[in-house]
Amino acid sequence: MMPFKEMAKLDKIIHEPARLSIMSALDACTMAEFLFLQELTGLTKGNLSSHLSKLERAGFLMIDKQFVRRKIPHTTIRITREGKNAISSYWKQLDQIREITKQWEKKNK
Amino acid sequence: MMPFKEMAKLDKIIHEPARLSIMSALDACTMAEFLFLQELTGLTKGNLSSHLSKLERAGFLMIDKQFVRRKIPHTTIRITREGKNAISSYWKQLDQIREITKQWEKKNK
Repeated sequence: MMPFKEMAKLDKIIHEPARLSIMSALDACTMAEFLFLQELTGLTKGNLSSHLSKLERAGFLMIDKQFVRRKIPHTTIRITREGKNAISSYWKQLDQIREITKQWEKKNK
Repeated sequence: MMPFKEMAKLDKIIHEPARLSIMSALDACTMAEFLFLQELTGLTKGNLSSHLSKLERAGFLMIDKQFVRRKIPHTTIRITREGKNAISSYWKQLDQIREITKQWEKKNK
């Protein structure tokens, strides 16, 4: 396997820094409230919302919107089994590519 | 340091998959001919050229365009000291963030 070809095809849905941050945070705490996730990632409300929709469309998380006393929005986000698998295989792929790159470097020096 | 905030701010000039692939290939072989780099990364000619210009503007590589017998273009690309430092600190930062994420996960489970 040519590591650099693999690297160029990394899953952009997860690889994009803000989404990588969101997925890693959710992988660590499984479920998080919107404001807590915003605090963890340092993303703006708009950025976080748009990235969450992309990840939800990919099937990597579920967004649950409730209203407390019918007025106060309370949104919780939960990573799905598919999402957990995606982030763990993303890291495995990256580690594998880095390992092969090191071997490739030794062979070509 | 909150790992997820750091992750969301990863250096996009290097983090973008195609550029990460180009920088890793150049880090491994220091200098490469355009067609060889295209073969290594599997990128199209146009994609490779536009990413190379971005990396050149960032000071991470130098592009040397020569003409063999005044007709045949021969382009070689060499990683700069600054480029080598940038890719190595990128990987260090990513490893650090992953390490802190694991500790954060243990603390919050």
